[in-house]
Amino acid sequence: MAKSEKINFSTPSGFPEFLPGEKRLEVYLLDTIRKVYESYGFTPIETPAVERLEVLQAKGNQGDNIIYSINPILPPNRQAEKDKAGETGSEARALKFDQTVPLAAYIARNLNNLTFPFARYQMDIVFRGERAKDGRFRQFRQCDIDVVGRRELSLFYDAQMPAIIAEIFEAINIGDFLIRINNRKVLTGFFKSVGVEAEKIKSCIGIIDTLEKVGEAKVKQELEKEGVLVEQAQKIIDFINIKGTADEILDKLKYLAQSASEAEIFNLGVTELETVISGVRNLGVGENRFCIDLSIARGLDYYTGTVYETSLVGHEALGSICSGGRYEELVGVFLGEKMPGVGISIGLTRLISRLLKAGILNPLTPTPTQAIVVNLQEDLMPVYLNVSQKLRKAGINVVTNFEQRPLGKQFQQAEKQGIQFCVIIGSEEAAAQKAALKDLKTREQIEVSLENLAEEIRSRLV
Amino acid sequence: MAKSEKINFSTPSGFPEFLPGEKRLEVYLLDTIRKVYESYGFTPIETPAVERLEVLQAKGNQGDNIIYSINPILPPNRQAEKDKAGETGSEARALKFDQTVPLAAYIARNLNNLTFPFARYQMDIVFRGERAKDGRFRQFRQCDIDVVGRRELSLFYDAQMPAIIAEIFEAINIGDFLIRINNRKVLTGFFKSVGVEAEKIKSCIGIIDTLEKVGEAKVKQELEKEGVLVEQAQKIIDFINIKGTADEILDKLKYLAQSASEAEIFNLGVTELETVISGVRNLGVGENRFCIDLSIARGLDYYTGTVYETSLVGHEALGSICSGGRYEELVGVFLGEKMPGVGISIGLTRLISRLLKAGILNPLTPTPTQAIVVNLQEDLMPVYLNVSQKLRKAGINVVTNFEQRPLGKQFQQAEKQGIQFCVIIGSEEAAAQKAALKDLKTREQIEVSLENLAEEIRSRLV
Repeated sequence: MAKSEKINFSTPSGFPEFLPGEKRLEVYLLDTIRKVYESYGFTPIETPAVERLEVLQAKGNQGDNIIYSINPILPPNRQAEKDKAGETGSEARALKFDQTVPLAAYIARNLNNLTFPFARYQMDIVFRGERAKDGRFRQFRQCDIDVVGRRELSLFYDAQMPAIIAEIFEAINIGDFLIRINNRKVLTGFFKSVGVEAEKIKSCIGIIDTLEKVGEAKVKQELEKEGVLVEQAQKIIDFINIKGTADEILDKLKYLAQSASEAEIFNLGVTELETVISGVRNLGVGENRFCIDLSIARGLDYYTGTVYETSLVGHEALGSICSGGRYEELVGVFLGEKMPGVGISIGLTRLISRLLKAGILNPLTPTPTQAIVVNLQEDLMPVYLNVSQKLRKAGINVVTNFEQRPLGKQFQQAEKQGIQFCVIIGSEEAAAQKAALKDLKTREQIEVSLENLAEEIRSRLV
Repeated sequence: MAKSEKINFSTPSGFPEFLPGEKRLEVYLLDTIRKVYESYGFTPIETPAVERLEVLQAKGNQGDNIIYSINPILPPNRQAEKDKAGETGSEARALKFDQTVPLAAYIARNLNNLTFPFARYQMDIVFRGERAKDGRFRQFRQCDIDVVGRRELSLFYDAQMPAIIAEIFEAINIGDFLIRINNRKVLTGFFKSVGVEAEKIKSCIGIIDTLEKVGEAKVKQELEKEGVLVEQAQKIIDFINIKGTADEILDKLKYLAQSASEAEIFNLGVTELETVISGVRNLGVGENRFCIDLSIARGLDYYTGTVYETSLVGHEALGSICSGGRYEELVGVFLGEKMPGVGISIGLTRLISRLLKAGILNPLTPTPTQAIVVNLQEDLMPVYLNVSQKLRKAGINVVTNFEQRPLGKQFQQAEKQGIQFCVIIGSEEAAAQKAALKDLKTREQIEVSLENLAEEIRSRLV
C-alpha cells in the first residue's frame, strides 16, 4: 500500500483525544461521578448532539458562544441526489454548546413523561468554537446535574449540591478542596443598598466575578468605568472581602441586614444563604470543605440565588473544578412556565487535562487486562483458550497471547502494559492440570492447580 | 415569562433522544457490553467527534455515506471577530460517520504509544446524513471492538469474536440468537472457480449480501445484469444455499476444494474458516449459537476474510444485531503499512429502538432511586437528611422528599417511578430512633431501628 503523503491525519485543533490509559482514567472518573449522582436519585438523560439552530439561539441562549452548524456533504457517487436526500434544504441545525439549553428543550419535549422535581444527570460532549488555547477545547465532556421544579423548588436542593461535590472529590482523592458558596441576591441587595442603579447590577456582578483573575485595583477601575462612584466601589470591595467562618460571615450579614432593612432582596439572600449552610451541615459536609465567599459571583447571567465554586487547595490557579448555582428563568424558556432549578457542572475533559498536566492525577494502565496466558506451544492453544475462558468467567480480564514470541518478550510486553499476571502452561503443566503463575508486581512465581488459578489471581490482584 | 410561540423545540429529524427509563436501559447495556469487552482485554478509546474532512474522505473512506461538515456561527455580539476568532478560514472539518476511519487515524497519530496487537473498544456516537426513516438515525451509538496487528494477526482473534458476541447477548438475555459465520475468500474463490471475472467479484459479493432482503430470483437477475452467465449464477445460488451443520458444510467445502484445486484463494478461505470454527468451539461457544452460512457476505467493500452476522431467532426481520469481519487494507491507510484487523460492531441505538418497539426489551424504571425518605414534618428535616446520608453511605440510592405533600401523594409518586421503599419518620419514630419502612413491591410495612434500616432495605431490594 502506498503511503498517503499528503493527508494530514492529526486531530483538528481543539478536538482532543486521550491515550488508552488516559481514557481509562476518564471512564473511572465517569463511573465515580455517576455513582454519587445516582446515590442522590439523579437519573441519566442524553440529548442529541444536534439541536435546531432556533433552539440554541432562542432568547439569547447562544450567549457569547461560537457554535457549529452542521451541513450535509454528499459522497461523490451520490451527487445526483442533491435535492432528494432529505438533507438539503432542511432546517438549520447546530451542535449543542452546553447541556442547559438542551435540558430546557428536553423538558419541553417530554413534559408529560417526567416527574417533578426532575433530577437528572447528563455527561454528554458539547462543542464550542473557542480559540483552542489555554487548555480550552472545542469539544469537551461536562458532567452536569440539575434539579428542576415546577413553580417552586426547595432550598434544600441547593444544600445538597455541596454534599455531592464533596463526595465526588473525596472519592477521586485529589487532595484538599474548598467549596465556596455565595448568594446572588446578597450581592444584588448589597449593590442596591449602596446606591448602584438597578440596571447596572448585573454587569457589576460580572466585574466582581473577575476579582481573582484581575485583582482588586482593576475591579475597582472597571466598576468606576461602569459609573459606580469611588465611594460605592470601595464599599463593594470591602463587602466582598469580608472574611471569617461561615457563622461569622452570616452574623455580619445579618447585622448589615438590620441596618439596611429597606433592602428586601438582601435580607432574602441572607436567609437563603443561612438555610443552605445549615442544610450543608445537616448533610454532614465537613466544616473544612466549604465556606461562604462573598466574592464568588459566577459570570453567567442566569444565576439568581445560590452560587458555587470549588477550588483545589494549593492549586487555586487551576480555577474552579466544579461550579453552578440556582436559576429561575432558564429551563422554562420554551414553555413560558416558571421552572426554577439548581445545578452544578464538572468540566471533565478540562479537569482531566489540567490535573494530568499538574501531576495531580495519573493515567491508569493502558489496558484493563489483569492476566496474560502466554503462548509456549501452538498445539496447547485449546488449553490456553479453555483456561482463559475459565478465568474470564471468574471475573478476571484476560488476554490469550496468540503470537509466538520468546517467553521473555511476552513477559516484557505484559509488564510494559502494567498487566500483573502471566499464566505459563507447557506440556508438563497441561498434563498435570497446573500452571505456573508469575506475579509481575512481586516478581514471585508459584505453581497453582488450574482449579485454584482464578482464586489465586483474585487474592493477589492489586 | 411569555411563551415563545414560534420556537420549534422538537428534536431535529433523525436525532433521537431517550426518556430516562430508556436511557437507563442504554446505560445498563453499555455497562454489560463494556464488561465483556474488557474481560477479553479490549481497552477503551474515544476519538474526537470531528475529524479533518481530508481524513474522512481519504482513499474513498467516505464510501456511500452523507457526512456533516461543521461551520462556526459567531454570536450576535461577536460578529466583529469574524477574522480573528481562529475559527473562520480554518481547515474543513466534519463529524465522524463510523469508528473505523477514526481508528485508522488514531493509530497513525499515536503509533508509538500503542502496543500491538492493539485491541480497543469504542462506544462513541457517529453521524450519518441518511434519510431519517425505517428506524435509521442520523446520530447513533455504535459499540465496536477491533484488534489490529502490524503485518500479521492470528486467526484466533477471528475465533474470539463469536465468543464475545455470544457472551454479550447471553448476558442481555433477549432470547435465542445465531451467529452466522462465513469467509470472503471462500466466496471470492468460488466465484473465480465458476469463471466470474476477477473485477466483477466484489460487486457480485455485494449482490449476494442482499439475498435475505430481496430473495433468490432478484439476486439471480442482478448477477446476470452484472454479466454473470445464467449457469454461473445458478452455481452461485446453489453454493450459497448449502445447508448443514458446521462440520457438514466444512466437509462439502473441502470436497469442493479438492475438485477445484486450482483455486488457491478458495482453499485458503476453507482453511481459515475451519481454524476459526475450531477456535470458536475451543472457546466454549455452544453449538446452537453459531453456524456457517455461505450466503453471509457483508456489503462493505473492505472485508477480506472472516465475516459475521448475528440474528435474533424468531425475529430475523430485525436484521443483524451484531456484524463484522476481517480486513487487511483499512487501518494502515494513513501509514502506508499493512495492518490487518478484525472487528465487530453493535449498532446500539438502533438495536435498543428496535427491541423496545418489538417488546423484546423494556425500559428500566425512570430513576435509579431505591428509597424515598418522606417528608412528614419540616422540623424533622435534619433527621431526614441524616438518615438519607447514612443510607447513601451504605450504597443505597436515596431521595429525600423536600416538598410537603400529603403522605398518600408521596407514596403515589414513589410508586409511579418504580421506587421500592418509603422511609417514614414522624416525631415519635425520631425520638425512638426508628422508622416505618414501607415496601411498595410487597405492600408490607414494618418498623425498623434506624441502625438496621440500611441492612433491612438491602436485604429486600429487588
